[in-house]
Amino acid sequence: MIIVLKNKASKDSIDRFVNDMTLKGLNVHLSEGSEHTIIGLIGDTTAINADDLQSIEIVESVKRISEPFKQANRKMHPDDSLIKAGNITVGEGFFNVIAGPCSVESEEQIIEIAGDVKKSGASMLRGGAFKPRTSPYAFQGLHDEGIKLLIKAKKATGLPIVTEIMNLNHIDLFTDVDLIQVGARNMQNFDLLKELGKCDKPVLLKRGLANTIEEWLMSAEYIMAGGNHNIILCERGIRTFETMTRNTLDISAVPVLKSKTHLPVIIDPSHATGNSAMVAPLSKASVAAGADGLMIEVHNNPSKALCDGAQSLNPAQFESLMGEIKKRAEFENKII
Amino acid sequence: MIIVLKNKASKDSIDRFVNDMTLKGLNVHLSEGSEHTIIGLIGDTTAINADDLQSIEIVESVKRISEPFKQANRKMHPDDSLIKAGNITVGEGFFNVIAGPCSVESEEQIIEIAGDVKKSGASMLRGGAFKPRTSPYAFQGLHDEGIKLLIKAKKATGLPIVTEIMNLNHIDLFTDVDLIQVGARNMQNFDLLKELGKCDKPVLLKRGLANTIEEWLMSAEYIMAGGNHNIILCERGIRTFETMTRNTLDISAVPVLKSKTHLPVIIDPSHATGNSAMVAPLSKASVAAGADGLMIEVHNNPSKALCDGAQSLNPAQFESLMGEIKKRAEFENKII
Amino acid sequence: MIIVLKNKASKDSIDRFVNDMTLKGLNVHLSEGSEHTIIGLIGDTTAINADDLQSIEIVESVKRISEPFKQANRKMHPDDSLIKAGNITVGEGFFNVIAGPCSVESEEQIIEIAGDVKKSGASMLRGGAFKPRTSPYAFQGLHDEGIKLLIKAKKATGLPIVTEIMNLNHIDLFTDVDLIQVGARNMQNFDLLKELGKCDKPVLLKRGLANTIEEWLMSAEYIMAGGNHNIILCERGIRTFETMTRNTLDISAVPVLKSKTHLPVIIDPSHATGNSAMVAPLSKASVAAGADGLMIEVHNNPSKALCDGAQSLNPAQFESLMGEIKKRAEFENKII
Amino acid sequence: MIIVLKNKASKDSIDRFVNDMTLKGLNVHLSEGSEHTIIGLIGDTTAINADDLQSIEIVESVKRISEPFKQANRKMHPDDSLIKAGNITVGEGFFNVIAGPCSVESEEQIIEIAGDVKKSGASMLRGGAFKPRTSPYAFQGLHDEGIKLLIKAKKATGLPIVTEIMNLNHIDLFTDVDLIQVGARNMQNFDLLKELGKCDKPVLLKRGLANTIEEWLMSAEYIMAGGNHNIILCERGIRTFETMTRNTLDISAVPVLKSKTHLPVIIDPSHATGNSAMVAPLSKASVAAGADGLMIEVHNNPSKALCDGAQSLNPAQFESLMGEIKKRAEFENKII
Repeated sequence: MIIVLKNKASKDSIDRFVNDMTLKGLNVHLSEGSEHTIIGLIGDTTAINADDLQSIEIVESVKRISEPFKQANRKMHPDDSLIKAGNITVGEGFFNVIAGPCSVESEEQIIEIAGDVKKSGASMLRGGAFKPRTSPYAFQGLHDEGIKLLIKAKKATGLPIVTEIMNLNHIDLFTDVDLIQVGARNMQNFDLLKELGKCDKPVLLKRGLANTIEEWLMSAEYIMAGGNHNIILCERGIRTFETMTRNTLDISAVPVLKSKTHLPVIIDPSHATGNSAMVAPLSKASVAAGADGLMIEVHNNPSKALCDGAQSLNPAQFESLMGEIKKRAEFENKII
Repeated sequence: MIIVLKNKASKDSIDRFVNDMTLKGLNVHLSEGSEHTIIGLIGDTTAINADDLQSIEIVESVKRISEPFKQANRKMHPDDSLIKAGNITVGEGFFNVIAGPCSVESEEQIIEIAGDVKKSGASMLRGGAFKPRTSPYAFQGLHDEGIKLLIKAKKATGLPIVTEIMNLNHIDLFTDVDLIQVGARNMQNFDLLKELGKCDKPVLLKRGLANTIEEWLMSAEYIMAGGNHNIILCERGIRTFETMTRNTLDISAVPVLKSKTHLPVIIDPSHATGNSAMVAPLSKASVAAGADGLMIEVHNNPSKALCDGAQSLNPAQFESLMGEIKKRAEFENKII
Repeated sequence: MIIVLKNKASKDSIDRFVNDMTLKGLNVHLSEGSEHTIIGLIGDTTAINADDLQSIEIVESVKRISEPFKQANRKMHPDDSLIKAGNITVGEGFFNVIAGPCSVESEEQIIEIAGDVKKSGASMLRGGAFKPRTSPYAFQGLHDEGIKLLIKAKKATGLPIVTEIMNLNHIDLFTDVDLIQVGARNMQNFDLLKELGKCDKPVLLKRGLANTIEEWLMSAEYIMAGGNHNIILCERGIRTFETMTRNTLDISAVPVLKSKTHLPVIIDPSHATGNSAMVAPLSKASVAAGADGLMIEVHNNPSKALCDGAQSLNPAQFESLMGEIKKRAEFENKII
Repeated sequence: MIIVLKNKASKDSIDRFVNDMTLKGLNVHLSEGSEHTIIGLIGDTTAINADDLQSIEIVESVKRISEPFKQANRKMHPDDSLIKAGNITVGEGFFNVIAGPCSVESEEQIIEIAGDVKKSGASMLRGGAFKPRTSPYAFQGLHDEGIKLLIKAKKATGLPIVTEIMNLNHIDLFTDVDLIQVGARNMQNFDLLKELGKCDKPVLLKRGLANTIEEWLMSAEYIMAGGNHNIILCERGIRTFETMTRNTLDISAVPVLKSKTHLPVIIDPSHATGNSAMVAPLSKASVAAGADGLMIEVHNNPSKALCDGAQSLNPAQFESLMGEIKKRAEFENKII
């Protein structure tokens, strides 16, 4: 960490600052220039908040050199992590497609869709039981009944299942869920992250609507700090000024994450665009950019979907897309 | 709600759509043009999600005419709501300044600051006991011990207290808290909002980092839908590309909210800028723009603050600022 | 265009409004509801500004149904446009890679790089002669001398050339340039666009830093309205809150544009990320997403580049990348 | 400027880099740590582009310590600049209100509005002659005829006039214009800025839609580098995700600019919100935040305005607002 001091900083106040930092176990390198005195802090600075230093009266600006995330950091763990979720392996070298409806609506619906997506080559079933909805008057999901139906679909097809958790008291309901999703709106629900850190279930951590990649990795770090290292990151679009798509898919997040972390990263093109017509081109782009998988919404009757139908493919469209994805994943030497 | 149909929509599919909408209790007004058929839905459309309609195959686009929030809507409740929190009244005609440290750190600290801000004219004490921090390695607050210290400061000074809740299981700890804060990162933690809807404590609902004003009002609606109408909105800056301030204070949110809702709105200039030097000009601007109050960070030793010191005023700076605020609030005919 | 009137609009003022619109040659469809009166305008509304209507006292809100761009609109021109630039054809079915340095620096430099990129398979040479730089103290390009050097490189290699125009008085300098680039900062320099509308040179129109896709197409419309239909669009990243990349590549712009317009679209991954390590994954993603080409910065000595070296590939890296791009373009059945 | 080197940087390459920097006239301070070698560059670094350094292979990251603007920098010029435009003085201690229509439409219109706004206390008349419009089919202004009408209004009322330039070839048409406006879309039209740097007319430089404050000051620096120091900055809202206002007024820009530069800053609340109902609260907030003036749209018949009527006040509304502004400017001890 580099700290530039104000040029009016007194010798005395500098001495006190250096002393404080030394007491925190850091080595301090002082460099006095004609205009600015600059301090280099050497050692483990992850517990030090740059904004805190910024508040000290003699400090002009602070620059962090080492990243604030440790366990998620590729520098600490150069090999790619492979995450097991049910019977599938997610990570570098593999390509998994998670598919299913936005919401679980009925036994018939989820079992039919599960059968369809499995036949087309999906390796995991998604379906919302607890649904975060902007409006309190909108359909909020079937709750524990929805999870039970997902488990039935899992039994019927053998597909492992992923569904979203919104409440830390619900964790026991997720015992038979193979991958627990933390949605964009809860990416910084730190109490939920801590709770998930205590279990050993794999977690699918979606990026928040307007969160930086660094904040996203810090949320992964929350879970890892609790002891749970089974994390898959999911980019689902960020909020910008553009209105022709619901969000803006940040495809660059894939190579950034591949360089900064050892954790797998998948893409959700359905939520990123809110438009079923764009799911295919963005899915292909995701394979090419190096993502480890996709999460795609599929509904047997999108026009009747209780939520987010506009972005859902029907089973025939999904089957056709899977053909395209498989060819490209093989082209990129991924096991699909 | 107005729905523009695709020009290739068949008579048959239009009939089915009209029928569906009628079954939902809505009146349907059909207008067939040469290029587009347009449908107007008349009645209570708050439970209808525009995105859902969008997914229907024959639909080209959807425009909501009436706002999706009801209980928060000024149209439904033309008079300004006045919210009681402890012994203070927040809302149109009044001007309240909430002040205190980012975090409660010790009994001495919080009681000293409480005394200072009361003397300067603050009407409520703030202090974080549960702190949302980006890093799991950063100080997370004194938790229930922090709330106990706030209550001591309340007893010592008579100031009502506000502090943030991060976990719906903690609600019992807030019995003696006068105003429960929901932070920006939890604005769409819907399970927490529902829980707060069940109690009758006033809630200070901060705007999310990248949430629209409509989404913010929908989060207020979540609490109100549960029966708790005691909500104060707090604008604290949104995320943009600008880097010279930590966030961008959306001062326009004040007149927008004053026109759209009857709920009070206050401004947090400390978090909006992350810079103590900007707190004074933005506080004055907030009074002038019509805000009902301010929330300002004050620390007796900002350089030693365990979090967010850079944005904290010291007691002398706060006293001077309060002088400026009082003159302006009186100029605007507000009771301060 | 649909116009929702305020419920207090008088019969008289509505009549006057309907009359005004009729005088503009539009058909007016009036629909009176219990709460709102809604007006549909039928006919060519491209010259009508929605904001203007919005200002009329009786108007509550305005919704445009037909897009404001005409000549750029795929509805008016369903077939893909193929644009000739020198000896190359840009558009659907083809894949062109434009490569070269950020700035032309010397005869040796540009001729050496031109030879290198041609050998690797680039079909066009880029190089800045007039450079838009944030600082007036930074290198601004070799100006007309730079264009002369590009022409020498064109003669030496046979590659057509593209370079940026910043000043409408310079158009004569571009006589031997095959494709004139309008940079992001000049996307809404309307006088420059009008001037380019008068010539018949193909134009490479980059998206502005924070412009919507609709605004971008309206800028294309400016050039087309002048009579010049030879436009290639270039997505180069938009400005968001993310800081790990210089900009955020909006890959979704490719399928959006492919559906909204007949004009070709290429991607500039170098400027989008500002990081040479991300050029390869984003180039591959661009091919897969359906782009018609790429514009990539290549420098024979990136560390010595006078501008934007951080995002430049060296010739060996570019050669390797071209191998990857060719395989993928062929996989997508594009002629490269 | 501080440069952090990669830990694999060889002694040899570091030596070459140090030598390069020394040749550029900079003093180099080298600090070798166990993990990172850090270089401090001391001297005038304004001509050095951080991105250029970033491209050098051994460089990990670069941090600029001194700001890249010199002549606009308050450090170089601690006293507030007062800018003369016609018979008025703009800057600290004064408060000027510029008012008038979006577009000059006719002699009657501009003379009537000029008389009205003068009577209410405006000190300068605005009116667009050359209008930047998103659509080529929209009204683009009366051009030189519009300037002639403004000059007539100036003669009739004595008010100095401000109008926008869009084309560097038009500068001669602005001889009798007192203040030349550079619009948001041309903030980085560097050739236009250079041309304005050569004349001695005061320039009203609006902030670009998505430009940082630093970039804005660099655009001022372009004009100043040419010798013209008469610059007034105008904040007019930035682009964000919020849709209830056309743009988001960045009120924090006022205190940021007051600390970073000696140039005056005014606010345009009409363009910032696109909504006449918000002009009054944001005008009051601007006075309180420390702005040196306002630019407000006033039209004698907003519903008939040829552009941007929605944000225009009528003369009666403006007169009432001026009463409010005067009281507040006097309260802040400004000469109005």
